[in-house]
Amino acid sequence: MLKVGIIGVGTVGASVANILKDNADIISARAGVEIVAKSGVVKTLGRDRGVDIALTDNPDDILNDPEIDIVVELMGGIEEPYEVVKKALKNGKAVVTANKALLAYHRYELQDLAKDKAFEYEAAVAGGIPIINALRDGLSANHIESIMGILNGTCNYMMTKMANEGVAYDAILKESQDLGYAEADPTFDVGGFDAAHKLLILASIAYGIDAKPEDILIEGIENVSSEDVAFAKEFGYAIKLLGIAKKDSNEVELRVHAAMISQDEMIAKIDGVMNGISVVGDKVGETLYYGPGAGGDATASAVIANIIDIARAGKSAPMLGFDKPIEGKFTLKPSGEIESKYYLRINVNDKTGVLAKITKIFENNNISVKTMLQKSTSETSANLLISTHVALESDIQKMIDELEDLEFVNTKPVMIRIV
Amino acid sequence: MLKVGIIGVGTVGASVANILKDNADIISARAGVEIVAKSGVVKTLGRDRGVDIALTDNPDDILNDPEIDIVVELMGGIEEPYEVVKKALKNGKAVVTANKALLAYHRYELQDLAKDKAFEYEAAVAGGIPIINALRDGLSANHIESIMGILNGTCNYMMTKMANEGVAYDAILKESQDLGYAEADPTFDVGGFDAAHKLLILASIAYGIDAKPEDILIEGIENVSSEDVAFAKEFGYAIKLLGIAKKDSNEVELRVHAAMISQDEMIAKIDGVMNGISVVGDKVGETLYYGPGAGGDATASAVIANIIDIARAGKSAPMLGFDKPIEGKFTLKPSGEIESKYYLRINVNDKTGVLAKITKIFENNNISVKTMLQKSTSETSANLLISTHVALESDIQKMIDELEDLEFVNTKPVMIRIV
Repeated sequence: MLKVGIIGVGTVGASVANILKDNADIISARAGVEIVAKSGVVKTLGRDRGVDIALTDNPDDILNDPEIDIVVELMGGIEEPYEVVKKALKNGKAVVTANKALLAYHRYELQDLAKDKAFEYEAAVAGGIPIINALRDGLSANHIESIMGILNGTCNYMMTKMANEGVAYDAILKESQDLGYAEADPTFDVGGFDAAHKLLILASIAYGIDAKPEDILIEGIENVSSEDVAFAKEFGYAIKLLGIAKKDSNEVELRVHAAMISQDEMIAKIDGVMNGISVVGDKVGETLYYGPGAGGDATASAVIANIIDIARAGKSAPMLGFDKPIEGKFTLKPSGEIESKYYLRINVNDKTGVLAKITKIFENNNISVKTMLQKSTSETSANLLISTHVALESDIQKMIDELEDLEFVNTKPVMIRIV
Repeated sequence: MLKVGIIGVGTVGASVANILKDNADIISARAGVEIVAKSGVVKTLGRDRGVDIALTDNPDDILNDPEIDIVVELMGGIEEPYEVVKKALKNGKAVVTANKALLAYHRYELQDLAKDKAFEYEAAVAGGIPIINALRDGLSANHIESIMGILNGTCNYMMTKMANEGVAYDAILKESQDLGYAEADPTFDVGGFDAAHKLLILASIAYGIDAKPEDILIEGIENVSSEDVAFAKEFGYAIKLLGIAKKDSNEVELRVHAAMISQDEMIAKIDGVMNGISVVGDKVGETLYYGPGAGGDATASAVIANIIDIARAGKSAPMLGFDKPIEGKFTLKPSGEIESKYYLRINVNDKTGVLAKITKIFENNNISVKTMLQKSTSETSANLLISTHVALESDIQKMIDELEDLEFVNTKPVMIRIV
């Protein structure tokens, strides 16, 4: 059994504790060992955090607890978390963090201090998207040509809204604050600083370069007006806050700023609070990773993926993902029990009464028609193009066989499932 | 130094050998050890394979070579590769394969045989996209709700072409064959079988379920006509060949077939030969992975990522991706040297001669205008909305300062970079 201490039981910390409990079955089957949240640290005791683990207001209760194997740092801030994780490593504990600011300023020092102890931080960049995994381990054969990321959900939500509604920046900011997508003081997000912290981490993995936020160009979205958005649309662009890394022989460009990007690019199609990162490798070409960049559960998903890695303690991941079988194994659903909406193309002799006969067959087979088009294919024949409401696969197959047998149906009906 | 033997030096095998050579610097910096392709196996000696490693036509020359640490299986086929990888594991060698058919039929037997020896297969599903990594290690905290994949580039290329050009299936197939995107006998691809093999591998990782191709619904794109494509477009759908896994309490649906999918979905926007997989986890929500599903270099990128994993031999990946510094380190490019295209919004007093003065300033600063719009903002003022050709960041910044100082320019010009 592995025991986890969560320092900072806020939204993400509560999700970590609760997912370790709710998904314990699948987590232990994949990790090969039971993983339990033992205790958590909060600044103020007495509030209901929505968890049922022991809470303390003293980090040392976790850092000095010999039972704790893994410390999860979710405190926010820079220097205080730095002291906490240094102490955790010194006390022989593995560390998992989501703290992009901490890494923006101290990642190389932490790499040196961690040495052969585990220090993982998937959750620090792009929330639930396993981008650290992908960039560091999946694309390791490549020279990285470029990285282009939508790394801040607040900015992406606002830019999407401005594009869709043509409304002024200030109105969108207020709406975002009301919905909880932007802070009372939104500067850290809308000024590009949060995205910059994340970009610097990715740049270190891609290029081995140690840059601080002060070293690079950082601009936000505060000056983007609805006029700019309209211009962009007119010329086929979207405006997004992008974090960009670009290789130019031995130099690396690093910058964060609002950018006009062609709507043909995959990354331009990423809207709302979602994040996405395009990584171009010299051998693999363009790859893109998309998903939720923030949120309690999504971020906790990344934290726990790291915890499971650590639980494997130096062994490789089990080849097909499970160290031991899951209880309540999955079975294959018989194809006939699949439910779907369906499209059918039926070529018929264009005679009186054909339509009535066909619709009767649909009714007899319990299949409800949503749309129907009839198009002539010759003087005497026509295609019926039909889409259905949800139906059972076995009913559709039976009906297709019946239709095929009708003398006024010319060929076997073609069916395409609507997903 | 780690030595690799490549059994099957075709397109992908040649790429593996050449990338190990071309990218040796970054590969050894990341792996912490030099990795060398020692020898390769081909069916017919005497042909130029575009590699400079020793070639033999006898797999045993590699399987029995005590110097070889890692066997890369790129043979094609099922039972012959099965015997080869079994022998490799028996002889204590690690195995990396790209063989989806082998895994579709023998993955659980191979998991048992491999035990604590490394057996990796990132390249077997979706080419260069690190999807095995993401699904198995990045999303391990989740119950997987669904997987939806564009897993075959031949089919996706053809469906994209039919949608964009309104041409008949047979014409598109012929064109694809001429371009090398489809085989002379295309059945394995257009019949959905290749996609099915890949889906089964993903389903095992997500659900621990052992299903064979014969157990599941497999349909291809052979019956899709330009009429179906037109219908789909009319109703806001794209038609794609999809591999689908869906969880329904303890049952899993597995199916491959042409599907109509709303153009609003991210996966529907994936075109041409590219692949993409949407994975929905119960805690993380929807994630999507996009990239090249085939091709020598792209597939070799995944093979070598596995080789680098194996080179780390049970240690964790180095925290920031590099086990030792790269020679010829990267340096940060000064922001002023960034080159970009720019958009500017300049609010001016709407008087005679203003435009001439402004365009002269552009010229003086070596900045070339691409488009210009003028829009009134009041009785006496107007916005000039300008986009430039490629210019130097320092020139743009200098020019913005100059423009700001002009008495007929009302506010500091707003600039947005065009990416």
